[in-house]
Amino acid sequence: MFSKKQINQSLWLRGTDSSTVQIIDQRFLPFELVVVDLNTSGDVISAIRDMKVRGAPLIGVAAAFGIYLACKEQPDSDRYLDEVFHKIKMTRPTAVNLFYALDLQKKMVLEERAPEKRAEIAFRVARELMEAEINACQMIGESGYPLIKNIFKNRSGESVQILTHCNAGWLATIKFGTALAPVYRAHEKGIPLHIWVDETRPRNQGARLTAWELQKAGISCSIITDNAGGYLMQNGNIDLVLTGSDRTARNGDSANKIGTYLKALAASDNGIPFYVAVPSSSVDWNMNSGLFIPIEERLADEIHYMTGMTDAGTMETIKITPEGSCARNFGFDVTPARLITGLITERGICDASETGLHTIFPEKSERHD
Amino acid sequence: MFSKKQINQSLWLRGTDSSTVQIIDQRFLPFELVVVDLNTSGDVISAIRDMKVRGAPLIGVAAAFGIYLACKEQPDSDRYLDEVFHKIKMTRPTAVNLFYALDLQKKMVLEERAPEKRAEIAFRVARELMEAEINACQMIGESGYPLIKNIFKNRSGESVQILTHCNAGWLATIKFGTALAPVYRAHEKGIPLHIWVDETRPRNQGARLTAWELQKAGISCSIITDNAGGYLMQNGNIDLVLTGSDRTARNGDSANKIGTYLKALAASDNGIPFYVAVPSSSVDWNMNSGLFIPIEERLADEIHYMTGMTDAGTMETIKITPEGSCARNFGFDVTPARLITGLITERGICDASETGLHTIFPEKSERHD
Repeated sequence: MFSKKQINQSLWLRGTDSSTVQIIDQRFLPFELVVVDLNTSGDVISAIRDMKVRGAPLIGVAAAFGIYLACKEQPDSDRYLDEVFHKIKMTRPTAVNLFYALDLQKKMVLEERAPEKRAEIAFRVARELMEAEINACQMIGESGYPLIKNIFKNRSGESVQILTHCNAGWLATIKFGTALAPVYRAHEKGIPLHIWVDETRPRNQGARLTAWELQKAGISCSIITDNAGGYLMQNGNIDLVLTGSDRTARNGDSANKIGTYLKALAASDNGIPFYVAVPSSSVDWNMNSGLFIPIEERLADEIHYMTGMTDAGTMETIKITPEGSCARNFGFDVTPARLITGLITERGICDASETGLHTIFPEKSERHD
Repeated sequence: MFSKKQINQSLWLRGTDSSTVQIIDQRFLPFELVVVDLNTSGDVISAIRDMKVRGAPLIGVAAAFGIYLACKEQPDSDRYLDEVFHKIKMTRPTAVNLFYALDLQKKMVLEERAPEKRAEIAFRVARELMEAEINACQMIGESGYPLIKNIFKNRSGESVQILTHCNAGWLATIKFGTALAPVYRAHEKGIPLHIWVDETRPRNQGARLTAWELQKAGISCSIITDNAGGYLMQNGNIDLVLTGSDRTARNGDSANKIGTYLKALAASDNGIPFYVAVPSSSVDWNMNSGLFIPIEERLADEIHYMTGMTDAGTMETIKITPEGSCARNFGFDVTPARLITGLITERGICDASETGLHTIFPEKSERHD
């Protein structure tokens, strides 16, 4: 479907009947662009768990295709399907998109009593979800673009300086991105930009993925350590902070990659607008506050080891901490709504509050509890 | 002087006349404990510039010994000595200890018109400075210890949880440390502690040096990413934050390793005490505000590359960012006094303010401008 040079999508369908699911194995970026097929539900489980795919919207869509593959495998076994549902559910705890996608598939697939139709239904659901995510991200680009345009108007031709954390580009979301969608849109419109890319330890999604995406798109960027954003804000170098969200609660509190909260504090302390770009698929309409969002603790080895390229051009993994040392690896933190200037959604920008979300998603925000 | 097992000092004198200056080359820690002689003023310049030694008090003392070595080299050439003064001065811009040490040596050495006495004088000045730094750090331990003791009193036997950033232990300060001095003192007194060690990108002084120091001392610690401190504070996991300072202005604003400001914001947002441990040798009595502290920008390669140990047990350097990517590497940020609960000095704890510093250092805080 894509030549490697033109690639701008993180998951796609190919084959004569467009039913083979392909992804970029993001663990090898930016050093190698490795494309792999997801042929079985087991492939999908390991792709999510081992972070070949990551990013809330992409995880949700991959999960939906996992159910499609399970339906191809054993459509007549409710027990098998339940097992796959459970296994996919257990891969990652924080991004809500995963659970929405599974709930939707569960409803559609298990309602269908004719096993021979289940794969077809699950495929349709997954493809529609994928299209919906792509559309939502495109619309987030439109919603967020005026923020950048308005800053540019007051800059007398100078680049707009934007800080972002982790990767919330097309690699995280099928296409366009969430936080990066307005950036891509502004770049298309000819607005000069400079993006400050937080490295994003421990997996370095900023340095490895966001910098790679922006470079491919021809957008000027500088990688900085996660420590540096506050300094840049204190010194007037940042006009706007844009991040994604793995799960936004009804009250606007947003869980995102660990460290986002620290940048929100610095933005608030320096009067810099801090926006969270979030499709409605990442809003947890059943959760009243970010206090309840489950935060993943990952393996300490992500802190102890680092992978990269040697001078000789081979991938190597090295240990960077003392022998026998202990590390703890928390994956996300929750930025309280009070620190968020606004949420950029597919229906426009709203306050990071229950009222704000209700105004633009009245149908979704009715309480189910 | 030390066996490698007992080593607890970052610079020391050895030889029959105790005049050979030895240091740990900290670039190889925690993988190798490499001890090197500083035999020439050039050795000292490269040791500071290339960060074989780092940490404000240690840099100051090393600089003072650099002048001693220069006096041994060409005691009768004011021009040569001036050149060495200038070269040492240009190694690192932020830590004020360096400039104090050079000013002191300049005054003492250039006042001495008999060249044959200069080396002896410079050696005495450097050794006295070293002793003064050691004493100050020991006293900082005494000054800060009650903070930890008081927290422990209210913890019904549980460990006191302390977050620290970068390395402000004995590796940074000849002996005892600044931020870690109260930690070592509390450990001696039998108070159970757990130290959360910020990795401290890009040079990882936390993961490489602080974790190593604490492990050697038998103090429980966990390495975390620089992103994680806010999350821990939000969740009630931190009782106290202790950091060092590379330069504290008269008003209490404190420049320290990049990222310190972000932790101070999080501490303030969560009502957690945030103390800066600072000997008077790191206070810039001539600077009214942290706004004027020069902030070092270092080579981008510190962000692009990472050094560590392969499985095969060899040191390897790998590239961790995309080919052709740009990075910016700011070394320090300034934490405004309003975010600092107090300064821990060799004369006790004071408010992070001009009045606070004046109260305990009345003789130093008279204005010279």
